[in-house]
Amino acid sequence: MREIAIIGIGQTPISENWSQSLREIAGEAVLKALEDAGLTSCDGLFVGNMLSGLLSQQENLGTLISDWVGIQYKEAFKVEAACGSGAAALRMAVMSVSSGELDCAIAVGVEKMTEMKGTETTAALATAADADYEVVHGLSFVGINALVMQRYMHEFGWKHADFAPFSINAHANAVHNPNARLREVISEKDYQRARMIADPINLLDASPIGDGAAAVVLMPANLLKTSFSDANNKKHPIVTIAGSAAATDTIAVHSRSDPLWLAAAEKSARRAYIQAGIGPKDIDLFELHDAFSIMSALSLEACGFAEQGQGLRLGLDGRICPKGQIPIATLGGLKARGHPVGATGIYQIVEVVQQLRGEAGPTQVDGAKIGMAQNIGGSGATIITHILRTGRN
Amino acid sequence: MREIAIIGIGQTPISENWSQSLREIAGEAVLKALEDAGLTSCDGLFVGNMLSGLLSQQENLGTLISDWVGIQYKEAFKVEAACGSGAAALRMAVMSVSSGELDCAIAVGVEKMTEMKGTETTAALATAADADYEVVHGLSFVGINALVMQRYMHEFGWKHADFAPFSINAHANAVHNPNARLREVISEKDYQRARMIADPINLLDASPIGDGAAAVVLMPANLLKTSFSDANNKKHPIVTIAGSAAATDTIAVHSRSDPLWLAAAEKSARRAYIQAGIGPKDIDLFELHDAFSIMSALSLEACGFAEQGQGLRLGLDGRICPKGQIPIATLGGLKARGHPVGATGIYQIVEVVQQLRGEAGPTQVDGAKIGMAQNIGGSGATIITHILRTGRN
Repeated sequence: MREIAIIGIGQTPISENWSQSLREIAGEAVLKALEDAGLTSCDGLFVGNMLSGLLSQQENLGTLISDWVGIQYKEAFKVEAACGSGAAALRMAVMSVSSGELDCAIAVGVEKMTEMKGTETTAALATAADADYEVVHGLSFVGINALVMQRYMHEFGWKHADFAPFSINAHANAVHNPNARLREVISEKDYQRARMIADPINLLDASPIGDGAAAVVLMPANLLKTSFSDANNKKHPIVTIAGSAAATDTIAVHSRSDPLWLAAAEKSARRAYIQAGIGPKDIDLFELHDAFSIMSALSLEACGFAEQGQGLRLGLDGRICPKGQIPIATLGGLKARGHPVGATGIYQIVEVVQQLRGEAGPTQVDGAKIGMAQNIGGSGATIITHILRTGRN
Repeated sequence: MREIAIIGIGQTPISENWSQSLREIAGEAVLKALEDAGLTSCDGLFVGNMLSGLLSQQENLGTLISDWVGIQYKEAFKVEAACGSGAAALRMAVMSVSSGELDCAIAVGVEKMTEMKGTETTAALATAADADYEVVHGLSFVGINALVMQRYMHEFGWKHADFAPFSINAHANAVHNPNARLREVISEKDYQRARMIADPINLLDASPIGDGAAAVVLMPANLLKTSFSDANNKKHPIVTIAGSAAATDTIAVHSRSDPLWLAAAEKSARRAYIQAGIGPKDIDLFELHDAFSIMSALSLEACGFAEQGQGLRLGLDGRICPKGQIPIATLGGLKARGHPVGATGIYQIVEVVQQLRGEAGPTQVDGAKIGMAQNIGGSGATIITHILRTGRN
């Protein structure tokens, strides 16, 4: 296997973007990433997307986007793993380069979700869950997560207000991210007074949908040394992929022996830690999948940052902010940067690269050398973990 | 890169299958392939599927199917490239093993299409084309192919009846394939009298949709020698992947300088030929993507079996039957075996393996050593070519 460097990143602001089509949004991120890498084309394009068929009546996105950006006769596919589609596309791009089959691959995540009625988008998002055994009972995706959060509070004795630090931290960080969808500070009072969506999940427990795309360019690390120049002759330090792993769990939450344990997060994180030769204590920042605040707690626990049932303590003790012990959602996370579902996994990677390059602005994590990103499809059903580091392994 | 062997194949009969759900159909093919390989699990599952979101309100198929067949905590994703989704999933599985990241991968293609109204399925299939620049004008997928066929007849001076051998050969071969959807011989008169769908494409130019799944199990060839035993202690000769390549073209047919030339077929076939160190004359059989009879002609031409505009001669001269110079659709092809779109690319691979094992029954190609399969997504937009051979390279 060849070691892989991320030599280009690109992203669009996440918004309600009715003036650009799906291919235009994706194309913008791809071209920005290529410019950042100082390249004009690549050998293959892997598109992370969940909902284009249902919401845009468009499949075959690999070819659609390659065609749009002028990448001709290369290979291109769409990869889907519900809200984990972005990292799934990255995982495929990693394999394409590590195998030696391609020398330069792009992973782009894109989603266009805001033009449909809310009920249609909610129905589309429910395709991440088990249609025959969960959705058939009338459960929506937020409904499933509400049941998990309810159970967590019951089992471990927490109050709703104890989840507040996750959302407050995410919003505080997003203020400084020009690409974030919700750039506003929230208080604990705001959090507690927010409109209820599916008890106990209220509006400030939930991440907003959005339209957006993010892209990364991969190359074998041995083709570079310690840095490279982008199209504008700006020097960037090299960032490499130290760990890349994925794991599935049952698709339905009710099939798990412990619905409060993200086994797929544990397995994929453990594999990534072993590949990188590190453990949780070595992680300088963790872009986790905070689609709902309960998911922040479960992710921190499954990845070894807290005991089961105790993930909330990290927030309550102030350890998740950019200056804390384990910074999360450093540029807003899903909660405030926004969650254009199939694009999210690549936004996370782009943000970890920004941190490792030292280009994250006011929420820069001091001296960040190792960052982890974890993207989840379904309610813990498909979990993909990547560990990035500065320099070569 | 590691050389890869296909050590297990499985398929379900293609039918109007309302008694099994999507996961049950896929699971049946996966379990058959594992049994054929003498295995009970694998390291990763790659699902080729196009329409599950639109037609079954179910995404996240990688995890859905892994969960159903009891493959736990491995990685699994859905790969989509319209009607080329099956071979796209195989391509990903190939990369996962050739990279050394996985030691055993399954590619499964599945589609469940017949429970919806025909108009809904037609609308869903149109997501393979360009929503903004083709479908918006009222073009259906068969409509696009009809325009191409019309132009081909005009440009090269052929009559509709000249396409008949493609459909007649496919039906004649499917009679002997227990998994085929249409197991009935057709005559030239039947062909000419068939009901018109989109002039000049009539019912017997078009492949039928269907419900079905097919799966293959991949391992590094160096873990085997020349043969292996399945779960029933039956010996199979080893079949390896000698070439694996994909290429995109423009998504819309009208964007091509020559709408009658499948540039992506040419490019991906050429790459596969180079990898295998062979040329068209070395191919013993070719499972091509005969979704419409015009596509058989275009595929044969782009892959070097005929000059442009002369692909029909191979049919008229009797060279495409199992005893001919370049047998195609040897077990029925899309035309008569059936075309469950995201599954088709894997059915093709399974059939090539059947031929190379000498287990293809009455339509066995004598002494078949090298077989090619080509799967197309959209109207020539995404084309994936695989070359398989007996023994190791």
